[in-house]
Amino acid sequence: MRRRLADVSAPARLAADDEGLGRDELALATRNHGLPLEAMRHDITPPGLHYVLTHYDIPYVPDDTDWRLTVDGRVRRALSLSPEELRGRPAVTTRVTMECAGNGRALLTPRPVSQPWLVEAVGTAEWTGVPLRLLLAEAGVDPEAVDVVCTGADHGVERGVEQDYQRALPIDVATGQDPQVLVAHTMNGAPLPPQHGSPLRLVVPGWYGMAQVKWLRQITVADTRFTGFQQSVAYRIRQEPWEEGVPVTRIAPRALLVPPGFPDFMSRARVVAPGRVPLQGRAWSGGAPVTAVQVSTDGGTTWHQADLEPGRGHRWAWRRWSWNWPAVPGEHVLSARAHDAAGHAQPLEQPWNRGGFANNLVQRVPVLCAERPVHG
Amino acid sequence: MRRRLADVSAPARLAADDEGLGRDELALATRNHGLPLEAMRHDITPPGLHYVLTHYDIPYVPDDTDWRLTVDGRVRRALSLSPEELRGRPAVTTRVTMECAGNGRALLTPRPVSQPWLVEAVGTAEWTGVPLRLLLAEAGVDPEAVDVVCTGADHGVERGVEQDYQRALPIDVATGQDPQVLVAHTMNGAPLPPQHGSPLRLVVPGWYGMAQVKWLRQITVADTRFTGFQQSVAYRIRQEPWEEGVPVTRIAPRALLVPPGFPDFMSRARVVAPGRVPLQGRAWSGGAPVTAVQVSTDGGTTWHQADLEPGRGHRWAWRRWSWNWPAVPGEHVLSARAHDAAGHAQPLEQPWNRGGFANNLVQRVPVLCAERPVHG
Repeated sequence: MRRRLADVSAPARLAADDEGLGRDELALATRNHGLPLEAMRHDITPPGLHYVLTHYDIPYVPDDTDWRLTVDGRVRRALSLSPEELRGRPAVTTRVTMECAGNGRALLTPRPVSQPWLVEAVGTAEWTGVPLRLLLAEAGVDPEAVDVVCTGADHGVERGVEQDYQRALPIDVATGQDPQVLVAHTMNGAPLPPQHGSPLRLVVPGWYGMAQVKWLRQITVADTRFTGFQQSVAYRIRQEPWEEGVPVTRIAPRALLVPPGFPDFMSRARVVAPGRVPLQGRAWSGGAPVTAVQVSTDGGTTWHQADLEPGRGHRWAWRRWSWNWPAVPGEHVLSARAHDAAGHAQPLEQPWNRGGFANNLVQRVPVLCAERPVHG
Repeated sequence: MRRRLADVSAPARLAADDEGLGRDELALATRNHGLPLEAMRHDITPPGLHYVLTHYDIPYVPDDTDWRLTVDGRVRRALSLSPEELRGRPAVTTRVTMECAGNGRALLTPRPVSQPWLVEAVGTAEWTGVPLRLLLAEAGVDPEAVDVVCTGADHGVERGVEQDYQRALPIDVATGQDPQVLVAHTMNGAPLPPQHGSPLRLVVPGWYGMAQVKWLRQITVADTRFTGFQQSVAYRIRQEPWEEGVPVTRIAPRALLVPPGFPDFMSRARVVAPGRVPLQGRAWSGGAPVTAVQVSTDGGTTWHQADLEPGRGHRWAWRRWSWNWPAVPGEHVLSARAHDAAGHAQPLEQPWNRGGFANNLVQRVPVLCAERPVHG
């Protein structure tokens, strides 16, 4: 008879070479969900289509009257704020493309056993809230501050460690102005949905999803480095389990295609008719603005320069790209490759690590150009 | 070089005994999504948490000005209606629990290879629209009418057959008043989201999801039985592939638990503290009202009668049930079992068929009651 938390909470592991997806991975895949890639046609992801990853349960908050966000720790004056108070303050709205740090994990060889994303763990929303730097200024941050620890109301166990979800931001990121971190109360003009952190969440433009603490109830200024589970155990880039590893931070550049033509239900293979096929998609990078997108229709042998829409002031949001493909009958593999102003480009070989984090391998989209006319 | 639709569109198959989930099944699981079961606490499923299954792509309809719904075939006067015209008509609102016909499929042995639901393909919404029977009356249905064929704008290929998604309702169901079929334009008081059929969809209370045609653009009255792919090939209950099979229609009774305590991230196992653990969940049936829910905490050996909330006039929606569990340390398997007024109860052994349809096997929820105090 098992009676301890460790009994239900196995260590991290890699799948064996021939190991199909397990029921544990499936249980995560059926409750978390990605963006159906055809919905990248929308600049702002429609409600319910933005990717969602929750480590534990979605907290049940039918009424936020009693909710308090505290700002405490190494501050001169602790704050306790209700969502209503925060909604009454001057607000900033930022369009942000958010991506899960584990996006692409299920395509890795070997496959880290965790949330099994293919490439769809992304979405773009307009988040409205109060800049975190203003709340910290109001509380008066100790000059010795190092980290700002953010705690959510979501509670669970992970590799034997019972915890509330907690992540820290370095003090310079938390108080930075570019990007400006938000305590958001509004998503696309409406109150946050439960799965996106109702009533309050952190939004850290340009960073992977693990930093965007949902169901935010405490912000603690610390004068030492935070070493909680999600900071020092999870979300580190390691080749071997004993390494200290490098923290996962900003989103690596990525481009994805709106899948052309129409799909087969089961294989999800795409079918197009011969002739001019307009290709389009989105590209983003958290490190530096996207500067170019290249497209290949032959599996990466040759590349074409795509048209890239201007950013229109939305530095932290994806940009649309397009290119016209003269399709001929046969099988093709389509790819798009983003480059950013820091000189980073998506890798053509998988950037593997044990957690399956920040993997921005170029996408491969198999397409059948059918000989006979199709409706696509 | 493969050049035909059949090349990307394999026949239906069953997984081998030891076969883990494939990438094709995962691709469906990451884009379609279930209801995180803790969200059953809400009477009405919050936006974005209702289950979604789309066979092909979600059509892109940024503006429905040019959308037309036609009513044609064996009618005296064909109709062509815009969403705006339909929104201007007297409307009916019905609270409906909708469930995918394939819910539970991934738990079957052997497993039919298709959308791999565990048990979470369900959701409850208030749908507002115009009764289909009124539109059909206005068009003037031929007395010889047999089927009403509904066509969506979603287009794809399935087992080699290129198609728009099409399903028929028998004329008596289409014109019935209990339930009353709706051409819905509103979900929970807002326009339909893209993934739920924007701008118009069918809502057939009490029937599985395959009947609820989304992106509805044509309603055709026919004087012969409809034999399209989704009617005569898919969505039939068969033991062997050569059987004609029985059509999938109304939702079989099912009860599910709101998972108690808190989860382990990876195993999704539940952890509770010893003592009184309030259990709750939902129960529904499309065939007849739910009359009782029983709860077991010992894997189905003994059963306890749960409290069942009154239906409050929402015949087609789930009902809440509750029961207090005196939990003692150790491992337990929790189940709930729904009974309906037609005398149907959930089976304790899997009701297997090749498509994995209408499988309402009693849920099993492993729970660890930990010896030491936990925060759960």
